[in-house]
Amino acid sequence: MSTLYHVLGAKQFDREQLDRLFGSAKEMEQVAVRGGIQRYPNKIMSTLFFEASTRTRFSFESAMHRLGGRVIGTENASQFSSTIKGETLEDTIRIIAGYSDLIVMRHTEIGAAKRAAAVSGVPVINAGDGSGEHPTQALLDLYTIQKEFGGIDGVHIAMIGDLTYGRTVHSLSYLLANYKDVRISFVSPDNVRIPTYVKQYLEEKRVAYEESSDLEALAGSADVFYQTRIQKERFPSLEEYSKAEGKFIIDRKLVDAMKRNALILHPLPRAGEIDTEVDGDPRAAYFRQAQNGLYIRMALIEQCLGGERQGGEG
Amino acid sequence: MSTLYHVLGAKQFDREQLDRLFGSAKEMEQVAVRGGIQRYPNKIMSTLFFEASTRTRFSFESAMHRLGGRVIGTENASQFSSTIKGETLEDTIRIIAGYSDLIVMRHTEIGAAKRAAAVSGVPVINAGDGSGEHPTQALLDLYTIQKEFGGIDGVHIAMIGDLTYGRTVHSLSYLLANYKDVRISFVSPDNVRIPTYVKQYLEEKRVAYEESSDLEALAGSADVFYQTRIQKERFPSLEEYSKAEGKFIIDRKLVDAMKRNALILHPLPRAGEIDTEVDGDPRAAYFRQAQNGLYIRMALIEQCLGGERQGGEG
Amino acid sequence: MSTLYHVLGAKQFDREQLDRLFGSAKEMEQVAVRGGIQRYPNKIMSTLFFEASTRTRFSFESAMHRLGGRVIGTENASQFSSTIKGETLEDTIRIIAGYSDLIVMRHTEIGAAKRAAAVSGVPVINAGDGSGEHPTQALLDLYTIQKEFGGIDGVHIAMIGDLTYGRTVHSLSYLLANYKDVRISFVSPDNVRIPTYVKQYLEEKRVAYEESSDLEALAGSADVFYQTRIQKERFPSLEEYSKAEGKFIIDRKLVDAMKRNALILHPLPRAGEIDTEVDGDPRAAYFRQAQNGLYIRMALIEQCLGGERQGGEG
Repeated sequence: MSTLYHVLGAKQFDREQLDRLFGSAKEMEQVAVRGGIQRYPNKIMSTLFFEASTRTRFSFESAMHRLGGRVIGTENASQFSSTIKGETLEDTIRIIAGYSDLIVMRHTEIGAAKRAAAVSGVPVINAGDGSGEHPTQALLDLYTIQKEFGGIDGVHIAMIGDLTYGRTVHSLSYLLANYKDVRISFVSPDNVRIPTYVKQYLEEKRVAYEESSDLEALAGSADVFYQTRIQKERFPSLEEYSKAEGKFIIDRKLVDAMKRNALILHPLPRAGEIDTEVDGDPRAAYFRQAQNGLYIRMALIEQCLGGERQGGEG
Repeated sequence: MSTLYHVLGAKQFDREQLDRLFGSAKEMEQVAVRGGIQRYPNKIMSTLFFEASTRTRFSFESAMHRLGGRVIGTENASQFSSTIKGETLEDTIRIIAGYSDLIVMRHTEIGAAKRAAAVSGVPVINAGDGSGEHPTQALLDLYTIQKEFGGIDGVHIAMIGDLTYGRTVHSLSYLLANYKDVRISFVSPDNVRIPTYVKQYLEEKRVAYEESSDLEALAGSADVFYQTRIQKERFPSLEEYSKAEGKFIIDRKLVDAMKRNALILHPLPRAGEIDTEVDGDPRAAYFRQAQNGLYIRMALIEQCLGGERQGGEG
Repeated sequence: MSTLYHVLGAKQFDREQLDRLFGSAKEMEQVAVRGGIQRYPNKIMSTLFFEASTRTRFSFESAMHRLGGRVIGTENASQFSSTIKGETLEDTIRIIAGYSDLIVMRHTEIGAAKRAAAVSGVPVINAGDGSGEHPTQALLDLYTIQKEFGGIDGVHIAMIGDLTYGRTVHSLSYLLANYKDVRISFVSPDNVRIPTYVKQYLEEKRVAYEESSDLEALAGSADVFYQTRIQKERFPSLEEYSKAEGKFIIDRKLVDAMKRNALILHPLPRAGEIDTEVDGDPRAAYFRQAQNGLYIRMALIEQCLGGERQGGEG
């Protein structure tokens, strides 16, 4: 199993691997624009979504189809029948691995993807594990910055919203540690601040960061505004949630104060954190970002199926 | 976007377009009978069913596969994850359009398909929007009449059942207005009569119609009996429903009073409105009608993907 | 319809057919190992799961894809929309048969597959009908014994657990009646003993069997230990269930008392009836068994689509 290429967490990627991945994503964009290729007519990808995520699942399934492959999937996490019957994740994965060439998995528990990879006979891609990681989202976020700016070194990024439960923020922070002179401003309500273990990682990697609760103060200085959704379902109580919701909105007024070439990103779906009146602004890059998800996932599938052999995270 | 070909409502079709579509459907029947073709090996159709409809979804997905294409889908309307998270339909469509070449959509709200088409970068086919329209069903209904009778001009059709909430009846009425000397008898309980806006449309188009609550009186004179299901889920209260249910059944006795070459249609599923003892009668055309749905949908997909450029309804 | 090849129940198979099927499964293993073939690029298989079973569905869908075919499916049994609307199974099947070349069906009611086959225009494979039969599971069980031992004649098999509601045990018993000198030990709690009609069938076919509630006593003598899950959802009450649960576990101690070349099978999922500490033992064959499911189902699909014409069970 040790020779399989899994995508489990953001920390497994170094700069060289990122450069290679982004180069591949760029080629994939050309492939997709030309309508796809029949590269893997016999390969089967399983999408195991123990937690529903239509957008992420569609993105992966579209990526596999654009590469000419096949998909078997379950969209209905909570009704995964053998889990209801008491089966362990390990048993499920052992068997599904025998029916497919690649497993894309979303799960409710931190570390689930790593547990899956440990017993799987085929590559596993983590499509989100609870409040743990969501590496493919962070990779497409980073790819978008690279594509829009031509590079990532020296960027000043404001990450806004629920920084405790927002796993994409964690994964993206880890990835950014591979670049030079990056500066991160974590902007959040007090009750959903960035976790200590993320800050410790950044300190180890000598990444400059600061914490703030004043989004306006950053409007004129940051290059990237990475907005996130206040995830109701991740909050322990409704009280905690109502304290956090709606405090850090990106609207017309804020955008007007931004740099000319600033970039507004959001992993989507949004629920009001970015006002729709901003959509037409060229700095609003979130729909281009979602589209980039297709190319990054094509590139990752290619690496998993194409024989890349560099070991997983673990 | 204005050059994309969307299928949003019955009113967008004129006679010439219907003739062309039915000609294409006839060819598609030959294609399907020969087992399908590999016309769109790289094309992806998204089926977004915000409201479950297994039969309609299967019909579209089979049509796409018979044309050699690919499908990504969600069958689980109410669990569409980003909608739960508060995403607008417009955001969802913008992103899904980036992952596919065609969107087939069923939604609970009137006008949803039109809203989707307004922001979609790819063609949208309305597979039913609330109590609004269901144009592809009406097209296959009409195609069945054309196929069985050799033409539609001069036909006398009785539409029976829930005419308030039965959206296929509305769509079919609009389509029939393209033909000459058509006569429509709307037969329904008092509390679910045909809406005024449908009648006004028919008057504008000079289509002869009448309202009735006596199905037996029409048995010997109508050419087509278009039976519909009393849709429990569309009634505001259980009381309203029980007043309507089961009053207008097509049974052996009624069929015996019909013309020799009459046609019994039903959009299906049925729940007792047509007695199964009628199934073996050659006039019972509802299973042939369901089969025609495959050919009509193949023809519509072909028009959407094949570059037909004649603008949508709006 | 009478010339279609359906897979409805274990009793439809005689020894000659089993030999042929197992020969085909062996070839399919080679096909799958080489990555699959494009044998049915235009064929569509419908998976109608009125009761969720992710594993079984994935196994069939993977099998169809490995043969180059296409799949349209529903994973969400209880939400099958036309059923909710009151449609009969017969109506559903008539229509789905018009959209596909093969129907794989799991249902909650005994006899549902046979009812479907009676009206279907395409072959039907029973993927489990209530507490009735699950023939494809039994076929893969039997194939595993044949593959591991080189033959089935003379085998002594202990079937353990819920023998009343465990439909695979019934189907496997019927299949075993085709072989010589087979001996079956039914090991179960008193309240879930093997049904009388299964015993009567075995007596008619002169198969030696016994009933027991002492698993340990058989440890040293049986060749095959066919463990099953105590299926909570099949028990009429929680009381009945708690009486049965957990009484017949296969653990390290029991395995140590088994013959050197004994075989431990389980249709999976398991929920504790086989201790995971046993997984590494070469006698633990349940994951190899699950993998064999792919090959058996490829062989069955091949028979259904490839023109095998020997009539169904009925």
